[in-house]
Amino acid sequence: MGKQQFVILEVIYPGMTQLDFTAPHTIFSRIPGVRTIVASPAGGEVECDGGLAFAGTAKLAEIEGCDLLFVPGGWTTVTMINDDGFMGEIRRLAAGATYLTSVCTGSLILGAAGLLVGKQAASHWAWREMLRLFGAIPGAERVVRDGNIITGGGVTAGIDFALVVAAELAGETLAQSLQLGIEYAPAPPFDSGRPDLAAPEVMRIIEKRFETVMPAQWEQARAAAGRMS
Amino acid sequence: MGKQQFVILEVIYPGMTQLDFTAPHTIFSRIPGVRTIVASPAGGEVECDGGLAFAGTAKLAEIEGCDLLFVPGGWTTVTMINDDGFMGEIRRLAAGATYLTSVCTGSLILGAAGLLVGKQAASHWAWREMLRLFGAIPGAERVVRDGNIITGGGVTAGIDFALVVAAELAGETLAQSLQLGIEYAPAPPFDSGRPDLAAPEVMRIIEKRFETVMPAQWEQARAAAGRMS
Repeated sequence: MGKQQFVILEVIYPGMTQLDFTAPHTIFSRIPGVRTIVASPAGGEVECDGGLAFAGTAKLAEIEGCDLLFVPGGWTTVTMINDDGFMGEIRRLAAGATYLTSVCTGSLILGAAGLLVGKQAASHWAWREMLRLFGAIPGAERVVRDGNIITGGGVTAGIDFALVVAAELAGETLAQSLQLGIEYAPAPPFDSGRPDLAAPEVMRIIEKRFETVMPAQWEQARAAAGRMS
Repeated sequence: MGKQQFVILEVIYPGMTQLDFTAPHTIFSRIPGVRTIVASPAGGEVECDGGLAFAGTAKLAEIEGCDLLFVPGGWTTVTMINDDGFMGEIRRLAAGATYLTSVCTGSLILGAAGLLVGKQAASHWAWREMLRLFGAIPGAERVVRDGNIITGGGVTAGIDFALVVAAELAGETLAQSLQLGIEYAPAPPFDSGRPDLAAPEVMRIIEKRFETVMPAQWEQARAAAGRMS
C-alpha cells in the first residue's frame, strides 16, 4: 500500500447479521494504513439482527469510492438485492474498487450486481446454491478467492476471511499479529458447525426453523436474478 | 428455564472491544426463552473500538436485575474498574444474578467487584496475570468455569464461551444448532492465536505495541485492587 490510505467500505443495512460485519470490522480496523468506512442506504442508525443497532453510519450515496468493497449478509439480503437504488450504489462502488469481498449471504449482493458471473464464491451453507442464479460457482470452502474477489462462508467464517484479507493487504506476519491480538485459537465446545458434522437431531432443529422461511428467500433471490437480464 | 423469560444483561461501555460483546450477543439472542438487554453507564449511544458505535443502549442504573450478568473487556476496562458508580452497579446486579460471566478483560470487572476471590477465571492472555490482584486464580483455558462463574479468554474466545453458556441454559443439542446456524467450523488461515503458537517476529509486533501501554494498564488495575477492601 502507498502513502494514501486504503479505504475499506463496509456496507450495512437493516436486518443484516451484525456478526457478519463486526468480526471482519475488528480485523480491518486494525490493519495499518487502512481507513474503514461503515455506510448504509439511509445513513445514520441501522438496526441489525438480535436487536442491536449501530449509530452514525455514512450514507452510501455520499461515498465517493473505495479500494475494497465489503458486503455482509443476513435474512434481509434477498430484499436488498431487489432494491434498485441500493444495487445501483453497489455497482457504482464496485466499479472503482480493487477488491470485491463478502461474508455469508453478502455474496448474493455481489452476484445480483452481476459481479460474479463465471466466478467462484462462498456463502452461508444454507444459501450457497442460490449463487448459481447469478451465474456464480458456489464454493464450499470457508474462504474462497477468485482473482480479486474474496468471499467468506456463513457468519463466523468472517474471521478467517478477514485474516486472509489482512494478509493480502499487509502481509502474513502482520495478519498473524492481529490473530494473536484477538486470541483466535478457536476451541469450539462442540463440532457441529457444518451440516456434514452436525447430528441428525441438530439438523432437524435448523431444518424446522428454515422450512417456513427458505421458500420466500428463494423466491426473492429468483426475482433479483430476473432483473439481471 | 421456567415460563418467565431469562434475562441476560450485557454491560457495555465506551472504548470496549466490540467483538467481545457482539459475538456472544449473536448466540445469546438466539437462545429460546432468553431476553437480552444491552446496557451502558450513561445509556444511549456507546462508541467502542474501531470507531463502531451502538445506539439505544439502556441505562445501567435503571436495570432492575438479571439472571445472567455478562461483561466484555477492552482497553478501557481498567478505567471502568476505578469508577465507583459503575462498580456499584456491577455489584448490585451481580448480587441478584444466578450466573456471572465475562469475556476477555471483562473478568477484571468481576474481579474488582470482589466476585472472584479464590475463584478460577479466564482473561485475554496479555492481561491474565492481573486477575491475581483481585484474589482470582488465572486459568489459561479458553473457557473457564468455576461454579456459576463462566469466563472466556481474549476476544474471539467469546464464541466458544457463549456456546458453553447456551448449552448450560438450553441444552447441548440447541447449542449445537446455534453453532450450525453461524457456521462455526473455524479454519484459521494461520496458527498464531496464542503466544505459545506465534512466531517470534509476530510476538515482537505485539510486544512493541504493548510495551508503551501495558504499564499504565497495570497501574490502573493495581489502583482498583487497592480500592477493594
